[in-house]
Amino acid sequence: MKELKKQVLEANLALVREGLVFYTWGNASGIDRERGLVVIKPSGVPYESMTVDDLVVLDLDGRVVEGRLNPSSDTPTHIGLYKSFPGIGGIVHTHSTYATAWAQAGRDLPCLGTTHADYFRGPVPCTDNLTAGQLAGDYEKAVGEVIASRFSGLDPAFTPGVLVRNHGPFTWGATPAQAAYHAKVLEEVAKMAFLTLQINPSAACDQALEDRHFFRKHGPGATYGQKKQQQDF
Amino acid sequence: MKELKKQVLEANLALVREGLVFYTWGNASGIDRERGLVVIKPSGVPYESMTVDDLVVLDLDGRVVEGRLNPSSDTPTHIGLYKSFPGIGGIVHTHSTYATAWAQAGRDLPCLGTTHADYFRGPVPCTDNLTAGQLAGDYEKAVGEVIASRFSGLDPAFTPGVLVRNHGPFTWGATPAQAAYHAKVLEEVAKMAFLTLQINPSAACDQALEDRHFFRKHGPGATYGQKKQQQDF
Amino acid sequence: MKELKKQVLEANLALVREGLVFYTWGNASGIDRERGLVVIKPSGVPYESMTVDDLVVLDLDGRVVEGRLNPSSDTPTHIGLYKSFPGIGGIVHTHSTYATAWAQAGRDLPCLGTTHADYFRGPVPCTDNLTAGQLAGDYEKAVGEVIASRFSGLDPAFTPGVLVRNHGPFTWGATPAQAAYHAKVLEEVAKMAFLTLQINPSAACDQALEDRHFFRKHGPGATYGQKKQQQDF
Amino acid sequence: MKELKKQVLEANLALVREGLVFYTWGNASGIDRERGLVVIKPSGVPYESMTVDDLVVLDLDGRVVEGRLNPSSDTPTHIGLYKSFPGIGGIVHTHSTYATAWAQAGRDLPCLGTTHADYFRGPVPCTDNLTAGQLAGDYEKAVGEVIASRFSGLDPAFTPGVLVRNHGPFTWGATPAQAAYHAKVLEEVAKMAFLTLQINPSAACDQALEDRHFFRKHGPGATYGQKKQQQDF
Repeated sequence: MKELKKQVLEANLALVREGLVFYTWGNASGIDRERGLVVIKPSGVPYESMTVDDLVVLDLDGRVVEGRLNPSSDTPTHIGLYKSFPGIGGIVHTHSTYATAWAQAGRDLPCLGTTHADYFRGPVPCTDNLTAGQLAGDYEKAVGEVIASRFSGLDPAFTPGVLVRNHGPFTWGATPAQAAYHAKVLEEVAKMAFLTLQINPSAACDQALEDRHFFRKHGPGATYGQKKQQQDF
Repeated sequence: MKELKKQVLEANLALVREGLVFYTWGNASGIDRERGLVVIKPSGVPYESMTVDDLVVLDLDGRVVEGRLNPSSDTPTHIGLYKSFPGIGGIVHTHSTYATAWAQAGRDLPCLGTTHADYFRGPVPCTDNLTAGQLAGDYEKAVGEVIASRFSGLDPAFTPGVLVRNHGPFTWGATPAQAAYHAKVLEEVAKMAFLTLQINPSAACDQALEDRHFFRKHGPGATYGQKKQQQDF
Repeated sequence: MKELKKQVLEANLALVREGLVFYTWGNASGIDRERGLVVIKPSGVPYESMTVDDLVVLDLDGRVVEGRLNPSSDTPTHIGLYKSFPGIGGIVHTHSTYATAWAQAGRDLPCLGTTHADYFRGPVPCTDNLTAGQLAGDYEKAVGEVIASRFSGLDPAFTPGVLVRNHGPFTWGATPAQAAYHAKVLEEVAKMAFLTLQINPSAACDQALEDRHFFRKHGPGATYGQKKQQQDF
Repeated sequence: MKELKKQVLEANLALVREGLVFYTWGNASGIDRERGLVVIKPSGVPYESMTVDDLVVLDLDGRVVEGRLNPSSDTPTHIGLYKSFPGIGGIVHTHSTYATAWAQAGRDLPCLGTTHADYFRGPVPCTDNLTAGQLAGDYEKAVGEVIASRFSGLDPAFTPGVLVRNHGPFTWGATPAQAAYHAKVLEEVAKMAFLTLQINPSAACDQALEDRHFFRKHGPGATYGQKKQQQDF
């Protein structure tokens, strides 16, 4: 648990360092799959002073197991995603500028080049609106549900992120560090896509090029990096 | 007074640190409601060398009570807002890039997502033009008047900021620190809204989602953060 | 001369510090009006290692009086401006991003708000194209001529900058420091104007508001700052 | 070889320092023309910890001559360019934001002003799509081929960079340092061109002005800088 806590703290700090989070506008979590325990950032605590002891540990029913602070208000979303996507080990939520702009625009983020295709296969989807009922009820849990429902037919290992409509991005990965890495990638490709479509509104990317790049880094035929490794996140 | 001066100095420095102010393009103030005294930045003094002793103390009639420097030229606007909005404890004025662009565009800043809705209920309003008479007379006082007049029917606790047309943003809060915080939030949501409408000119946000987020952080039912607290600013 | 050299070096370094200049893409100069001598940056020398001894001193005929390096290739433009605008004491040239974009667009930079009106009275003008003859001849001198010709009817003390078409901005002031200050102001208002017109293509500013702000900081009735001072630059 | 390795390491680090590369999204190489050996960044290794010993040396047939790590996955592109452009000594590849946006837009980057004309003669070309056959085969080698084919009729010494469609920029120069320098120039002029065309969609630059600036810095008549030097890169 100590090791996972360190990873979660480091992922939270990476969000600030990479310029993805101002103030308390984001959170990172990790899961210990064997023990079924989630480690997450506390709610509304400044990053500068955060230590591993401030992190909150919960079980998958949302019961606090360890920690004296309230967990992030987005905790039910994180837990829902860990349940829906059994292969993931870390989750990050931010309000990073360009990814949030796409979420506010209610548009799937299209794949327009290899920077995107190296990490996300096809568009990064944008969820539907929540219904009045979902908003009135357990809102943060409902956010997890609309994400899971949007991923019907999609592989979360090949599309490690989502835009929650009128809200902002969630990304995930094999580890908290990788989830944070994907949050940065998503922000950068969201900026590039914005600029690209301003220059040429009908810009698009060849599917074959997308596939070539994605599978250069993912799956059994991956050739990128220093060793054959599972890079599906 | 010493404590308030420290808070006002710190709020002024925060504006520079957050990239909201170049040179002397901004000012922060705070009020001691019991004594009816306002502490404000001096006019045209560089932030780097500013100390608490450079700050100016005035009463609500604009008479200097303490300090050897001229107060910010925007002082009459600050005093007017403290009179019109009796619940506020700090005010910030900047020329931050995106918020100023919306002010120059003469457009209310629409609420397009939860980042905005977490802090501002509904659009951040843009004032009317000043009349020829207002411009010719006590200009800075008149700016306070057009703001107050634009807030007819609006609750300054729920909309802690305004865009002064062709000029720039003013924000406020329970404390100088919170006013500075809202200045940063306003700049970020102004940037996000700009980008959002470039991606999708008809983007909008569901009123129910806005309400859900705003009241998660404000009012008696607030659930965000570490304790039940008055977060109406 | 030592004092002026220090000022010129500091103005050159300020351009880099403020993010207005990459590599060697800019230059600052100053003039000693009594002696008729101009101090300017050497050509193509990196800022990091520049010292006062690298600066070049020339008379108003362009003859090098002091210094072992070639002066900036833009020196004839600087000298021309010092001759055309006898009231100025410092000049800066940059390729700062937004001001250069307006210059490349061939558009006068419109005054859209008080940030601009505090420093520049009315639009910052964009010059005409150089003629084939001007390009073929003493090109850098011709740049000074198109600027001076564009200022026919304009007061360089009220409009302390210009956009050279398809090239970039020149700014000036009473001192090298003020010229550098105006270079930063110009870049910021160029960015704000770009954003403003993207939000509202028909945005404009009330002439009376422009005048009110400009004369708050300039001329005998100026009320801004800590003392009555000549702030016409 | 030691000296070339230092230069290649320094060029790789410059890309990060100049904000052109996040994570491992870029690579720089250099060639020893006499020995026919290329030094290049290893694949997927973080810049922070990279040393000269991590660099990989290959011959022009792509055989590793020195180094224990895999070379950059883009190595076949670099080798292809060294073969096609015998005058170049260093190559850089990045996914820098604005240059990549133009590549994703599939548009040649037009020359709109002197900042561009000082380094690139005419537009920076964008390649064609790769064919299905090229994508299926030795992809990275095919990238080198589409670049070389796009340069039919162009002088790589006068146009030291290219946009690979839906991918990103490659730049080159006499040395690795100059290739990195051109990568920064390309990013800046790509940003300026984006902004320029947003302000004025029909903006253009006079050919005579372009020529005047380009030949001020290049060729036998160059007058810029401190000595007559070969500045054709």
